[in-house]
Amino acid sequence: MFITVYEVGPRDGLQNEQIAINVEDKIHLIRLLSKAGLQNIEVTSLVHPKWIPPLADATEVLKGISQDDKTQYSVLVPNLRGLERLQDNQVQEVALFLSASETHNQKNTNKSRVESLHALRETAYIATKRGFRLRGYVSTVFGCPYEGDVSLADTRWLIQELFDMGVSQISIGDTIGVATPKQVHEVFSSLVTTWGSDRFAAHFHDTRGSGLANVVAALQEGITVFDSSVGGLGGCPYAPGAAGNIATEDLVYLLEGMGYETGIDMSILLRAGQFIQGIIGRELPSKMLKTIAG
Amino acid sequence: MFITVYEVGPRDGLQNEQIAINVEDKIHLIRLLSKAGLQNIEVTSLVHPKWIPPLADATEVLKGISQDDKTQYSVLVPNLRGLERLQDNQVQEVALFLSASETHNQKNTNKSRVESLHALRETAYIATKRGFRLRGYVSTVFGCPYEGDVSLADTRWLIQELFDMGVSQISIGDTIGVATPKQVHEVFSSLVTTWGSDRFAAHFHDTRGSGLANVVAALQEGITVFDSSVGGLGGCPYAPGAAGNIATEDLVYLLEGMGYETGIDMSILLRAGQFIQGIIGRELPSKMLKTIAG
Repeated sequence: MFITVYEVGPRDGLQNEQIAINVEDKIHLIRLLSKAGLQNIEVTSLVHPKWIPPLADATEVLKGISQDDKTQYSVLVPNLRGLERLQDNQVQEVALFLSASETHNQKNTNKSRVESLHALRETAYIATKRGFRLRGYVSTVFGCPYEGDVSLADTRWLIQELFDMGVSQISIGDTIGVATPKQVHEVFSSLVTTWGSDRFAAHFHDTRGSGLANVVAALQEGITVFDSSVGGLGGCPYAPGAAGNIATEDLVYLLEGMGYETGIDMSILLRAGQFIQGIIGRELPSKMLKTIAG
Repeated sequence: MFITVYEVGPRDGLQNEQIAINVEDKIHLIRLLSKAGLQNIEVTSLVHPKWIPPLADATEVLKGISQDDKTQYSVLVPNLRGLERLQDNQVQEVALFLSASETHNQKNTNKSRVESLHALRETAYIATKRGFRLRGYVSTVFGCPYEGDVSLADTRWLIQELFDMGVSQISIGDTIGVATPKQVHEVFSSLVTTWGSDRFAAHFHDTRGSGLANVVAALQEGITVFDSSVGGLGGCPYAPGAAGNIATEDLVYLLEGMGYETGIDMSILLRAGQFIQGIIGRELPSKMLKTIAG
């Protein structure tokens, strides 16, 4: 069975790194990831550079990635102004985002969830007209750094709104990495019963070490798309105590070890991890990377 | 449902740390772990000091731990000579070990598996006569650094031999951290079918990030005892590329989050982790420790 590993390191990962990284190095990383067999790569974010300085070079990154048949590129877009910075045919997919928790959405976007839905609706409309496929993120589904527990009813409301806008796949995010497999079963069981398993991705951060255990729980609920970051880069600048995404290398080891196909070449993937680890200049969380370091 | 977290940090953890640690600090760590609610703590090893210099102070550690009603102490013993260094009533339990892989057993103990069984049999006999409960370890069950795949039939043979010696619980070890949940299901399903689930513990190292996912797989097979090290200390000096045990803090977070009882006070446990991290002087792998570091 094929499982899609959706690489978000160049965006979700690098947006939270403090060190300045050259455009050339970002493009080289994306090329290595594509070469490793990653079929989906979120390459950057068109959020205003003021908010995410590490991704202020988004336009240059988008110009630098070379289109090929086997990799689908995606870019995070907050609103119409962000979308206007995107040229036709630079990527195949545009990703829209909001938080299940009202307070986190407010802190992350300066909007209420209802205001976010309004902005996303017009962005989705134009993006679709321009030929982009739409991906959605609902974050803080498993817990919020400000509110604690998050209502599953709220998550379900936002999911329906995103599908109504024409979003084809929604990534369900444990932004602060508090979930354990029991909650993962509960949440995905509810979503899959209503909308089916092939419309969702799972997006886990490994803040408390349960990330890959949560992947297995989501697999058991039928989920076949998993977001991860090369090296375990990442986090969320507006979520206190958040750590990086699950590491792509460790996810691929787990999946292949369980008999799933990912189409990913581990040796090239590890080269990508070593490359970005060298650029960042600190030891990244990926355990697989450590097995080749010593 | 109650799950037993079996703390092996003072032995499996510290035996692989290069830094010299005072006896007083080891005893303080063990006291903190006991205070946190760990009901089983493996405190040291009576392997000849020549082989494991970091645990050369085993006799002093054993003298320093204070017996109490709520904590069961255990000590690793390789043979009769090791057992002779142990005084009556210093611990409740003696742990015997060997490897499922012939080559790893040879490198780790300088004996063939058959020779190990012979030595363990006489050690078990005397230990039982002296009133100690027996625990067994079978290591490299999921893979060997020298031989690669390990025969489940060999593991089953060694398990039966250990039970025949009077061992009450056998810890099944992924010494080099190569297992994924599929193999964990296969191995424990086989063992539990023959001997029942309450005679085994699972001992995972988190070398490739799958440690807690493997815990969930073992839970699903009915296993209720899990070995772990505070802070994620540990490894195996004779297993190249091996990393530490799964971290006790992360294991407890996972288990409690899934609705299991562990009887462990997380705040005291984190204090124990911070204490030993300060002594070791490097950032330990436990993710939960990092959530309080920032």
